[in-house]
Amino acid sequence: TPAGTGSGPGVGMDCCVIPLRHGGLSLVQTTDFFYPLVEDPYMMGRIACANVLSDLYAMGITECDNMLMLLSVSQKMNEKDRERVMPLMIRGFRDAAEEGGTSVTGGQTVINPWIIVGGVASVVCQPNEFIMPDGAVPGDVLVLTKPLGTQVAVNAHQWLDQPERWNKIKLVITKEEVKEAYQEAMFSMATLNRTAAGLMHKFQAHAATDVTGFGLLGHANNLAAQQRNEVAFVIHNLPILAKMAAISKACGNLFNLVQGTSAETSGGLLVCLPREQAAKFCSEMKSQSGNAGGQGPAGGAWIIGIVEKGDRRARIIDKPRIIEVPPRGSQAANQDNNSPAPSPNLS
Amino acid sequence: TPAGTGSGPGVGMDCCVIPLRHGGLSLVQTTDFFYPLVEDPYMMGRIACANVLSDLYAMGITECDNMLMLLSVSQKMNEKDRERVMPLMIRGFRDAAEEGGTSVTGGQTVINPWIIVGGVASVVCQPNEFIMPDGAVPGDVLVLTKPLGTQVAVNAHQWLDQPERWNKIKLVITKEEVKEAYQEAMFSMATLNRTAAGLMHKFQAHAATDVTGFGLLGHANNLAAQQRNEVAFVIHNLPILAKMAAISKACGNLFNLVQGTSAETSGGLLVCLPREQAAKFCSEMKSQSGNAGGQGPAGGAWIIGIVEKGDRRARIIDKPRIIEVPPRGSQAANQDNNSPAPSPNLS
Repeated sequence: TPAGTGSGPGVGMDCCVIPLRHGGLSLVQTTDFFYPLVEDPYMMGRIACANVLSDLYAMGITECDNMLMLLSVSQKMNEKDRERVMPLMIRGFRDAAEEGGTSVTGGQTVINPWIIVGGVASVVCQPNEFIMPDGAVPGDVLVLTKPLGTQVAVNAHQWLDQPERWNKIKLVITKEEVKEAYQEAMFSMATLNRTAAGLMHKFQAHAATDVTGFGLLGHANNLAAQQRNEVAFVIHNLPILAKMAAISKACGNLFNLVQGTSAETSGGLLVCLPREQAAKFCSEMKSQSGNAGGQGPAGGAWIIGIVEKGDRRARIIDKPRIIEVPPRGSQAANQDNNSPAPSPNLS
Repeated sequence: TPAGTGSGPGVGMDCCVIPLRHGGLSLVQTTDFFYPLVEDPYMMGRIACANVLSDLYAMGITECDNMLMLLSVSQKMNEKDRERVMPLMIRGFRDAAEEGGTSVTGGQTVINPWIIVGGVASVVCQPNEFIMPDGAVPGDVLVLTKPLGTQVAVNAHQWLDQPERWNKIKLVITKEEVKEAYQEAMFSMATLNRTAAGLMHKFQAHAATDVTGFGLLGHANNLAAQQRNEVAFVIHNLPILAKMAAISKACGNLFNLVQGTSAETSGGLLVCLPREQAAKFCSEMKSQSGNAGGQGPAGGAWIIGIVEKGDRRARIIDKPRIIEVPPRGSQAANQDNNSPAPSPNLS
């Protein structure tokens, strides 16, 4: 969430950073709420929590002092469904918060036509605990820590029951593959960006943001616009959930996935790293994949572009290299084809 | 807002209080969001902000380090109405935040069938900046800082256009009086409880809460239940917006106003004060009425009951004294009949 309604500090950043009256400390906080997009209430709760915390992680903050939960129960659900669904969603949210080393101690619940789930994450930091997202320099390398294509996967999954939609894409993907991709997207969205946040410090990241509603290019543009130096972000590679690029193409670029503007939910971090650190960052992300952190083979990170001198904008090159990211556990995932091999463009 | 979804510290309190990793400081925060209840979008924004901040004020906290705004725009509004209404609501929220000495630096906006407005208030405090709401002792006096009856006033105002509803109450109130009461309720709900929060320190308040959705008795019960000592709250007097008790009676106690369970929005603080301080607290509240703080004659405060030894519950005596609080600016308001004259019950 760029701090949308904000003025002053928060604007354009994922969080607002408020200098406190007490010894050099800052209050960093963010809020986010939206509507369910996966069918599993427990996973939806995890995704909502991961999405809220992601704004802190994008600033290299690995700790969170408190979370509040924002919920609305749908007036259109009967009592039985409410009692089945809402506790699971709350539990998923709490479990993800616990995985992030924090807890939910407050919140507000209302009745609404639609279900809403979201929250607030707050932390009080010393200056060395967060990385202001404005330090990119020419020569930096851009890294992305989750594959793109979550929106396409979620929609394709809904289309399994919509023949005229399904007919558009059935030539490029099987129902089985759609289900796999949907599962993969769900786990990816539910994965905390906390590991990446920690590694941002270890490898001296210069700036980062998280990729959500505006898509990779939208958030890359926001990040570029905030830089102190006159830089431009040039994106050469697009790591995308397997087959999602083909689906996007098959329905006439409905999603603009390859154009970089397909919305993501709880996407990865886009991180600007010193050139000599990027490969190490990626391999450490990969080696920590499949840990308690919850990142499977789809975790890890990919070098996607470079920082040049420029006018504080981001662009994707013509014909970017598509890196197909296979579902975790699949044959392909166990080969090494999602390693951060620098593309020709970078060598 | 009792921290509804909370566990641990926050529960039952208006805010959650999180001990921080840094030198004895605590993060105190609260969130609240709901649906518009008055027609004026600017005033609705002020009311929403006053309602969020009220949870901090109830702990004697007068400063707020940051606010986030939570908004939803109704999908049912046309573009023109959205552009007229939402900026006014945001402006009202921001203006009230500024009056509270804080500012809004972040938030989230979504599209929803219904308009939602609310926010998050956060502050990092030293221990002496807040008053834990658990220190009431037998002999304390209960003070209320805003009159009751906001829900009745808002509903009566809607009934002006609903003949069969209006016919039920037209014998006890004129349309003019309903409009006056509605205005009065609106200003009362938009008034910050910040003055009261400051005076809680000056007069050594032992505990407080703010009166909102559960009504006076509901919140009095919540507060009584949290007390360290075995105390009971006994309420003798009910300060109520003029004529609202009559309306509530006329429609068969639809609201249970005199029973103490009529919902309030952004109501006053219910404060437990040492007996010898209560009258001074009230007269200082009254003398600060009509200041920049925004409290007119309806501001001030009323002694409404006492704290006895008991089983941590609250009750309203049989046949409580109704204190009719006239609209500001009215003849009656300029007389002294809303002064905190202790009732016979207290002498």
